[in-house]
Amino acid sequence: MLPILFLIPLLLSTTSHASNQDFCVADLTASDTPSGYPCKPAANVTSSDFIYTGLSAPGELIKLINAAVTPAFVGQFPGVNSLGLSAARLDLGPGGVVPLHSHPGASELLIVKSGHITAGFVDSANSVYIATVKTGELFVFPQGLLHFQVAAGKKGAVAFVVFSSTNPGLQILDFALFASSFPTPLISKTTFLDPELIKKLKGVLGGSG
Amino acid sequence: MLPILFLIPLLLSTTSHASNQDFCVADLTASDTPSGYPCKPAANVTSSDFIYTGLSAPGELIKLINAAVTPAFVGQFPGVNSLGLSAARLDLGPGGVVPLHSHPGASELLIVKSGHITAGFVDSANSVYIATVKTGELFVFPQGLLHFQVAAGKKGAVAFVVFSSTNPGLQILDFALFASSFPTPLISKTTFLDPELIKKLKGVLGGSG
Amino acid sequence: MLPILFLIPLLLSTTSHASNQDFCVADLTASDTPSGYPCKPAANVTSSDFIYTGLSAPGELIKLINAAVTPAFVGQFPGVNSLGLSAARLDLGPGGVVPLHSHPGASELLIVKSGHITAGFVDSANSVYIATVKTGELFVFPQGLLHFQVAAGKKGAVAFVVFSSTNPGLQILDFALFASSFPTPLISKTTFLDPELIKKLKGVLGGSG
Amino acid sequence: MLPILFLIPLLLSTTSHASNQDFCVADLTASDTPSGYPCKPAANVTSSDFIYTGLSAPGELIKLINAAVTPAFVGQFPGVNSLGLSAARLDLGPGGVVPLHSHPGASELLIVKSGHITAGFVDSANSVYIATVKTGELFVFPQGLLHFQVAAGKKGAVAFVVFSSTNPGLQILDFALFASSFPTPLISKTTFLDPELIKKLKGVLGGSG
Amino acid sequence: MLPILFLIPLLLSTTSHASNQDFCVADLTASDTPSGYPCKPAANVTSSDFIYTGLSAPGELIKLINAAVTPAFVGQFPGVNSLGLSAARLDLGPGGVVPLHSHPGASELLIVKSGHITAGFVDSANSVYIATVKTGELFVFPQGLLHFQVAAGKKGAVAFVVFSSTNPGLQILDFALFASSFPTPLISKTTFLDPELIKKLKGVLGGSG
Amino acid sequence: MLPILFLIPLLLSTTSHASNQDFCVADLTASDTPSGYPCKPAANVTSSDFIYTGLSAPGELIKLINAAVTPAFVGQFPGVNSLGLSAARLDLGPGGVVPLHSHPGASELLIVKSGHITAGFVDSANSVYIATVKTGELFVFPQGLLHFQVAAGKKGAVAFVVFSSTNPGLQILDFALFASSFPTPLISKTTFLDPELIKKLKGVLGGSG
Repeated sequence: MLPILFLIPLLLSTTSHASNQDFCVADLTASDTPSGYPCKPAANVTSSDFIYTGLSAPGELIKLINAAVTPAFVGQFPGVNSLGLSAARLDLGPGGVVPLHSHPGASELLIVKSGHITAGFVDSANSVYIATVKTGELFVFPQGLLHFQVAAGKKGAVAFVVFSSTNPGLQILDFALFASSFPTPLISKTTFLDPELIKKLKGVLGGSG
Repeated sequence: MLPILFLIPLLLSTTSHASNQDFCVADLTASDTPSGYPCKPAANVTSSDFIYTGLSAPGELIKLINAAVTPAFVGQFPGVNSLGLSAARLDLGPGGVVPLHSHPGASELLIVKSGHITAGFVDSANSVYIATVKTGELFVFPQGLLHFQVAAGKKGAVAFVVFSSTNPGLQILDFALFASSFPTPLISKTTFLDPELIKKLKGVLGGSG
Repeated sequence: MLPILFLIPLLLSTTSHASNQDFCVADLTASDTPSGYPCKPAANVTSSDFIYTGLSAPGELIKLINAAVTPAFVGQFPGVNSLGLSAARLDLGPGGVVPLHSHPGASELLIVKSGHITAGFVDSANSVYIATVKTGELFVFPQGLLHFQVAAGKKGAVAFVVFSSTNPGLQILDFALFASSFPTPLISKTTFLDPELIKKLKGVLGGSG
Repeated sequence: MLPILFLIPLLLSTTSHASNQDFCVADLTASDTPSGYPCKPAANVTSSDFIYTGLSAPGELIKLINAAVTPAFVGQFPGVNSLGLSAARLDLGPGGVVPLHSHPGASELLIVKSGHITAGFVDSANSVYIATVKTGELFVFPQGLLHFQVAAGKKGAVAFVVFSSTNPGLQILDFALFASSFPTPLISKTTFLDPELIKKLKGVLGGSG
Repeated sequence: MLPILFLIPLLLSTTSHASNQDFCVADLTASDTPSGYPCKPAANVTSSDFIYTGLSAPGELIKLINAAVTPAFVGQFPGVNSLGLSAARLDLGPGGVVPLHSHPGASELLIVKSGHITAGFVDSANSVYIATVKTGELFVFPQGLLHFQVAAGKKGAVAFVVFSSTNPGLQILDFALFASSFPTPLISKTTFLDPELIKKLKGVLGGSG
Repeated sequence: MLPILFLIPLLLSTTSHASNQDFCVADLTASDTPSGYPCKPAANVTSSDFIYTGLSAPGELIKLINAAVTPAFVGQFPGVNSLGLSAARLDLGPGGVVPLHSHPGASELLIVKSGHITAGFVDSANSVYIATVKTGELFVFPQGLLHFQVAAGKKGAVAFVVFSSTNPGLQILDFALFASSFPTPLISKTTFLDPELIKKLKGVLGGSG
């Protein structure tokens, strides 16, 4: 007589098989797939799967760049699996810089929490788009393009960035070239940089080849 | 000399690895993924995987709403996995009603099999779209919006609904509020409904908190 | 003091630019795009855009096939634009047949309204899946595969089919070969059918070349 | 002799036709499409298209809810068109509340800028997920589900939310029911709320019918 | 002091969980999913996963059609998993023909390596598009439509075809009809071909039923 | 009596509104959209829209790199619009090199037509994948990652590349840095390259700032 009975056929399907129509919290112990990780059983999902506290404290600044990047991708925050979003925190000391990089799998939205950040990217037509983004302002970087963020003025800055994918990837130009095993002759041939310079930078950044 | 030989390299790839280029019948015993269930081995697929007989008989009407909803989502009909479609049957007795609800993961197409149904939805601009849909007519509900179906006139009605996803989800407003553990103070604060009314409805529908 | 004030910034965005976040009724007078038709202005959208009455009456049966197919694609039912669904009605007289065909752009779900229908398809491994689908039962055809529907037994049947696209396309095998300008020598060379047979069938179906 | 010559065929294609391979800033004067707005000509795009300053100041709090929501959807921030992201700013005074609502077209990531926010949602199985999210923490709401945000404790809070779509939609439950023309008898029939209560709430929120 | 330290938190996420943000080489021993195969562990991926040598030699020509088709789908070339591309090689002797067929899951781009190929397809409006494609020229076949390739003139030809999917499927018309268990009465009823002709062709191609 | 009558309702929909269910040849005179260009009217589409002859002849080699890249993106080959594929031709003289670059919007499949090509890419984990690809072999580059192609050995090479998008974009590292208006101080700050070196390379490649 109560409408709760109406739920019975629906709940049956929910609790037996069709468990994750609304979300799919990542089971990071399983193999990833092209659409993301398999789902943790719905019965084990709790509120704590949808909150992530790892970005509340500043990352430890790296001295050379006076900056820190702390990711909240699906590997850190399994609740975003299948939801098409992930995030990271940027901490920039005075003069701090996030070196030139790209995200092969996502566009990025920058939200400045405090301070001012000069942000920019270069597109396929070699046009350069640069702006100084103040506290509470937004800047968007299209997918796959080389871009950067640097603290503007003499103070540091804090920002959150959000990606249009749960696992955007991150290719840092200097590391791709000089912290990898990319053979020096091939780097030189495909970038026109001098082999001696490449070797020197590899010495600093730990590259080989 | 026969063209059947031509098939050999193609069939080899088909029978060894590339087994499900055309379809992917759900293996409901495996963990779901963001794109749907892993595929049952092609060798085990038969015609019976593509037919579903569970909607041929009327669902048992719930007295309070004088209606029944019988789903054919991927959990009931594994053949739709990866094909982007699923269905359900609505049985409405005289005055029957499918309470206000939404499907977070799919748009819905209503096809009236017999009788007349008053159907409607509200959009983000708070515009209301309502129509009485007669036998053989169609009505479409955009994804994620609150909508309803009620038997029009003094007779019952039967309809099929088809979804643009294999697992559309179903959030029934009254159950979300009054058949759940949603704390009464938070419901009241976020809906402006009176706590006493909320408690009363929770008593009827089985909610707690 | 009233929360309706809260709506003001949101409604502004709704009424000025971001008019169709929930749906996009097709403006069929504009050029189509790969994602569908441009949207009719939200201010002109009414309930009648979401209902379609053109499938309520039987189509007129074609004598040779004793069947009729009546489409409700985006061209007939502009409200489905952007929603990923469309439909058609099948009317089959006794012995009626929907000839072998495929939909290049969508999977298809068959819902039998009355009578029995024998439905089937062939997959890339040349496996054949056939079933007789009774009143109220469902059958699903994966995208792009050759399939058919014929009235089972000695009676006619009526069915609705729903597609996973607003514009699924329809390639009828006999018409592609024999009601087109496909040159007879090329048909013969690529199908191994006898040129004389091809010419004869073109005579019946109106093909040239 | 210079590699810049190498660019010529590529630049030609860039400047003539293939103008927006990397981004597609919305031309809000054109009709929207299911995939977003047509693109502003590349030649007219500048850095200012990718920055949005409209969220840097607090929104004006609505008294009854002691909160403000300021959107940065594609209608306000045309640079996000085609990039799959948009944002909004939440300002909550002490006790402030964003009423129960859903976004039919996007998942949402909450980033708390200052203060503490109690956030929660209900899923299709009527499970409730609630957490108190502190400064710098994240919370994610799956697409299309009813959810809310309220200031926790005795202080106000500020947050940014980011959506997995350029135009997520926003359906506020109370407005859909009580600030619309949804006929009172149909609301009552589909929600089990008393008609007198509905009329009273419509009086407060401006609904009709 | 060195920026390499900056990598540490990022590398941690890479090596622990978020292993395949950039690619997902297929683990063909696991069950396929609607989005493709689960990923091989990143630690086991090498350069050899991204190269495929199986198309460098001509396929062995089948006498009746004087042609060979050699696939490089995900089943043969696991590196394409998740990347939305696959390929095949066509070898045509003089007069060679790839019989009328369709790919239910992908569009196809033909690149002629040597010789001339007459290529064509039929669309849903029964329009026929045919062209003779010379060495170094391209021809594109939209998804799911019947199409063919034959050697033009008196010489053979070689071509590569690339698909917009890792697993496009392949339905060869003659094999679907005459090398399958498709019952002769149903073929006749749905194609208007004579049962005797069907039986004769089944005898040649190995069909039953 | 003839089945051609059966076509009438279907053809009506085809010729009036639903004209491009199968393909959507780009109307390059209209504004692009996030899903591609609006469609040329179906009545104006001919076979010539689906063939592209612009890659049959070698591109003119640029002396410094001894290479040429000739694109067949949607801007050159409008028939690929909506089909998810495009192509380019690489001509490499002895020692020729396609400098380090990425495609922000597509994965890429390399098919070597003649000669040997050393191809490689770097991923987000700074792993380097390099192989020498011989005539008739394939190599695949995941979307958005820095990669290169150089002629192997002492001879030249010719290749075709196919992309998983109609408009993949192309960001050449050296041009992004040294043929643009990217301010030298910001390049130096975000790449750790010496400003004097940057200025020198800008002099060669035509950059400013």
